[in-house]
Amino acid sequence: MLARNQYGKAENRVVRIFRDTPRHAIHDLNVSTSLRGDFAAAHTAGDQSHVLPTDTQKNTVFAYAKSQGVDPIEDFALALGRHFVDDVEPVTGARIEIDEYAWERIEVDGRPHDHSFVRKGQEVRTTAVTIDGEGSDQQVFVVAGLRDLVVLKSTGSEFAGFLRDEFTTLNETHDRVMATSLSVGWRYCHAEVTWQASYDAIRAALLEQFASVHSLALQQTLYEMGRTVLERRPEVAEIRLSAPNLHHLLVDLERFGLDNRGEVFHADDRPYGLIQAAVQRDDSPAADRAWETMAGFW
Amino acid sequence: MLARNQYGKAENRVVRIFRDTPRHAIHDLNVSTSLRGDFAAAHTAGDQSHVLPTDTQKNTVFAYAKSQGVDPIEDFALALGRHFVDDVEPVTGARIEIDEYAWERIEVDGRPHDHSFVRKGQEVRTTAVTIDGEGSDQQVFVVAGLRDLVVLKSTGSEFAGFLRDEFTTLNETHDRVMATSLSVGWRYCHAEVTWQASYDAIRAALLEQFASVHSLALQQTLYEMGRTVLERRPEVAEIRLSAPNLHHLLVDLERFGLDNRGEVFHADDRPYGLIQAAVQRDDSPAADRAWETMAGFW
Amino acid sequence: MLARNQYGKAENRVVRIFRDTPRHAIHDLNVSTSLRGDFAAAHTAGDQSHVLPTDTQKNTVFAYAKSQGVDPIEDFALALGRHFVDDVEPVTGARIEIDEYAWERIEVDGRPHDHSFVRKGQEVRTTAVTIDGEGSDQQVFVVAGLRDLVVLKSTGSEFAGFLRDEFTTLNETHDRVMATSLSVGWRYCHAEVTWQASYDAIRAALLEQFASVHSLALQQTLYEMGRTVLERRPEVAEIRLSAPNLHHLLVDLERFGLDNRGEVFHADDRPYGLIQAAVQRDDSPAADRAWETMAGFW
Amino acid sequence: MLARNQYGKAENRVVRIFRDTPRHAIHDLNVSTSLRGDFAAAHTAGDQSHVLPTDTQKNTVFAYAKSQGVDPIEDFALALGRHFVDDVEPVTGARIEIDEYAWERIEVDGRPHDHSFVRKGQEVRTTAVTIDGEGSDQQVFVVAGLRDLVVLKSTGSEFAGFLRDEFTTLNETHDRVMATSLSVGWRYCHAEVTWQASYDAIRAALLEQFASVHSLALQQTLYEMGRTVLERRPEVAEIRLSAPNLHHLLVDLERFGLDNRGEVFHADDRPYGLIQAAVQRDDSPAADRAWETMAGFW
Repeated sequence: MLARNQYGKAENRVVRIFRDTPRHAIHDLNVSTSLRGDFAAAHTAGDQSHVLPTDTQKNTVFAYAKSQGVDPIEDFALALGRHFVDDVEPVTGARIEIDEYAWERIEVDGRPHDHSFVRKGQEVRTTAVTIDGEGSDQQVFVVAGLRDLVVLKSTGSEFAGFLRDEFTTLNETHDRVMATSLSVGWRYCHAEVTWQASYDAIRAALLEQFASVHSLALQQTLYEMGRTVLERRPEVAEIRLSAPNLHHLLVDLERFGLDNRGEVFHADDRPYGLIQAAVQRDDSPAADRAWETMAGFW
Repeated sequence: MLARNQYGKAENRVVRIFRDTPRHAIHDLNVSTSLRGDFAAAHTAGDQSHVLPTDTQKNTVFAYAKSQGVDPIEDFALALGRHFVDDVEPVTGARIEIDEYAWERIEVDGRPHDHSFVRKGQEVRTTAVTIDGEGSDQQVFVVAGLRDLVVLKSTGSEFAGFLRDEFTTLNETHDRVMATSLSVGWRYCHAEVTWQASYDAIRAALLEQFASVHSLALQQTLYEMGRTVLERRPEVAEIRLSAPNLHHLLVDLERFGLDNRGEVFHADDRPYGLIQAAVQRDDSPAADRAWETMAGFW
Repeated sequence: MLARNQYGKAENRVVRIFRDTPRHAIHDLNVSTSLRGDFAAAHTAGDQSHVLPTDTQKNTVFAYAKSQGVDPIEDFALALGRHFVDDVEPVTGARIEIDEYAWERIEVDGRPHDHSFVRKGQEVRTTAVTIDGEGSDQQVFVVAGLRDLVVLKSTGSEFAGFLRDEFTTLNETHDRVMATSLSVGWRYCHAEVTWQASYDAIRAALLEQFASVHSLALQQTLYEMGRTVLERRPEVAEIRLSAPNLHHLLVDLERFGLDNRGEVFHADDRPYGLIQAAVQRDDSPAADRAWETMAGFW
Repeated sequence: MLARNQYGKAENRVVRIFRDTPRHAIHDLNVSTSLRGDFAAAHTAGDQSHVLPTDTQKNTVFAYAKSQGVDPIEDFALALGRHFVDDVEPVTGARIEIDEYAWERIEVDGRPHDHSFVRKGQEVRTTAVTIDGEGSDQQVFVVAGLRDLVVLKSTGSEFAGFLRDEFTTLNETHDRVMATSLSVGWRYCHAEVTWQASYDAIRAALLEQFASVHSLALQQTLYEMGRTVLERRPEVAEIRLSAPNLHHLLVDLERFGLDNRGEVFHADDRPYGLIQAAVQRDDSPAADRAWETMAGFW
């Protein structure tokens, strides 16, 4: 009756300093590991003989941060996942998820400082690597992405011509503020990718499309983002986007003798629209397994 | 190239007061709706003619809170989901998720007050209803559950006999604090259930098993919880549990001439173990569709 | 040019189990210490010879949790504060702040379990003890309180007859939902108090007044709460209350052919009203020092 | 028995777009207002005739965002505060607090876009303006500042030579990671300041000092930050700094045959050191009133 199960150590907060020269570099990560395999006895009989403790997984994460490096996070996740599956007997699958927080150098007298940093604060870069099976049957899925990339355009967005029913009261608009906090994940076709370059190009494409597309709906903007990434980046098989519509409500100032032509808004908290879409290559096999347990993507 | 997609209004904060008599009742909900169907044109061409605005979904939620009631949340979710699928032409599927926050009456002079309440603060009750398809082919999945139920036992928990590798440094223990914040979801076999009674019985069983099982590992405790629910509640087809191991680290006080036999702990934040398990009836078909987009369950 | 300064260790998460009998008890605390004194050289010259490390303060908190006990938190805070001021030479003042999270026993077969607990989840109990000076001049201030006590009354609340200016659009109401999340602190006249009994009586009085007072404004309710506490509890010199007005907006359902007489509300997040008031004995000297750095009270 | 009291509308989320030309500008604010004055009757008798509703305060904030502009936030806060005190009869004092979230333009083809923005994500800029009294006796206090500026230096920080007692176990270190999330507020001598230029110069000085000072303790770094600001900016009377010591714990990798010379750290959550200091001009009168209710500063 035991169905699927996994266990691991979540949110290992690894900070890795590279200090081989006086010009240090910093990588600031949140690493979660999950192992899958033959753990039935631990559940049904309390027998831990197949269970590598989560404390050991934590130790492994920190040791690998030294011995394998952490940059880029996709390689770090692959190294960890392969280790658990290949080197630990009862483990037949692993999921490694890593968040990376960006830092930039503090400027002193116009020059970037060697060892002092300020947290950048924008989006969190993410990866989720799934390793399934051993030996020649082993499957590897790499999803990379970002979250908390908050964007807004103050014009160039409409919402009109929508379906109406007896509960519809919304007015059409041909000029509104459109804002969202992007969560995006893209699945690579394989694991032979120049990860950093791919990430940078995809992030730039997402921002560029958000800015450039004259939007008739958030759905359309998301689709154009996804389509552009697939067109430009052959290494990407599929991209999923989840975007809350962060409503900016125009405030009625006529009551106070003031006009308000798209100038003063109340940024509302809840409820918010939530748009989720996936864009996929026609010729690419689906791989839902790569996305399991990832909140927010459908 | 557009793959699956859905959209809706998330986190409608509905408070429903029943006040037909001087003894009021309160239901405090967070309702999220998502619609699925033929929305390709909205993505690829910006054509909204099939898109029922998320604002309309919000209006519907509040109107149904009046006309259909909200108690229990499973029925409210079913009513909303069926309305969207059955009554809105382009909609072929819906997912309705509801959180409920519990309140209890304030006591005045030893008697529960008629219209004054204090938020109970313990677990959040949840449901996620999925409606798939129309007419006689329509499939309905009801998952109910809870989250943020924080439990701790101060003895009766061991962790020993585990697998060791070169990164293992953990000591075995035969008496430790075990604490977790439970997220549990259970999928019903059908939708003809006395929801409140079922919820109450399952919650009680979960707490009872946590308390009573002498635990050799959190995995074992979770499995016993799940098994017990399936044994006692024939209406449940499957149950999934996600449990962070909230580490309580024994503080070394010998350095200060004090012994510490399981008395003083540091409650650590991160990292934490994370154990996820599903227990399922042998004879029950899987239904992963019911769980999609639900964070934390695997 | 250095003005006032303090330093300490914040948020020590102490869990103390009493297990002298099979019926265990649990106390779950968040303890923050701050020291004041002659620390100028640490700031101006980097000289740490007067600085007791914050790591040592942490060790002291955990050691005292064993040797002095933690129950009630006011006594624990007094013991810690007096130790730092009396026993550590350069320290001339201390502020100890403690939050306590309540737990209750899990029921199994109708009986409270000996060593299994569920977090209660309602309000957080707080104390802030200030020790100022040494020897016979030493002053001791004890503030106790609570926060996150969320209460709501579904009728018995009005808001009318208010001041109007050119920006006023609010309608008067004689029946509304009133809800708040109470933060309350009360300063004791002295430190010879039966802390637990005093806390229980004050908490009950606050809830009772919230429920019983027919409210013409949140200000009035807060004042009646404070006045009642001072009348009933001679050990209290002053009480401060901070209460967000958690707006519950009646939803217009007439648009959909439904009436809504105080039944369906949208619980709004932001903005919220914020009402802060202090009630004090006429004959009690002010003691602003006791309240410094406590967010939310004015 | 009613002592001091104030009330207002907290967290008005104002987004102001300037769109007089195709090159839009965005200001994203969180505005809280509090009024002080003759409100005793509202508390003791429920008489609202002196009470300007918090809803009106909200309306005023949004109307002024249009009519007065919002840039810089210090001027917006001054305009709001003076309006309430000067124009609303029973109001004799006001406190206006504003947070500002920074945005930057999205780059498309190497050029900053006219109307598409990405949230910058770094520190929050703050101001707290206090207006006290009317007419020629009116006092005005302007505090400006920032919070959530997260900085780290990977070397150039020591902690040694500290006081030891029986609870001290910490080792001395001459090379550690020092990290903090800065909250800083500075009080201006008067209100005739070029706010933006002053803010930019102070922010730069804080970062520069953090980077440049070889630190013997966080206290010393904070003091040098404060001293430098006072030396360079004659318009500043006083500066207060609150800095959690975000501990980065060196991970013991020798157990796994790896050395770790300041390369791999665990970023711990709690507890954390907390250092608070104020630096003030010798010849400047104290003004604690300007700082009341501001959490975190002492």
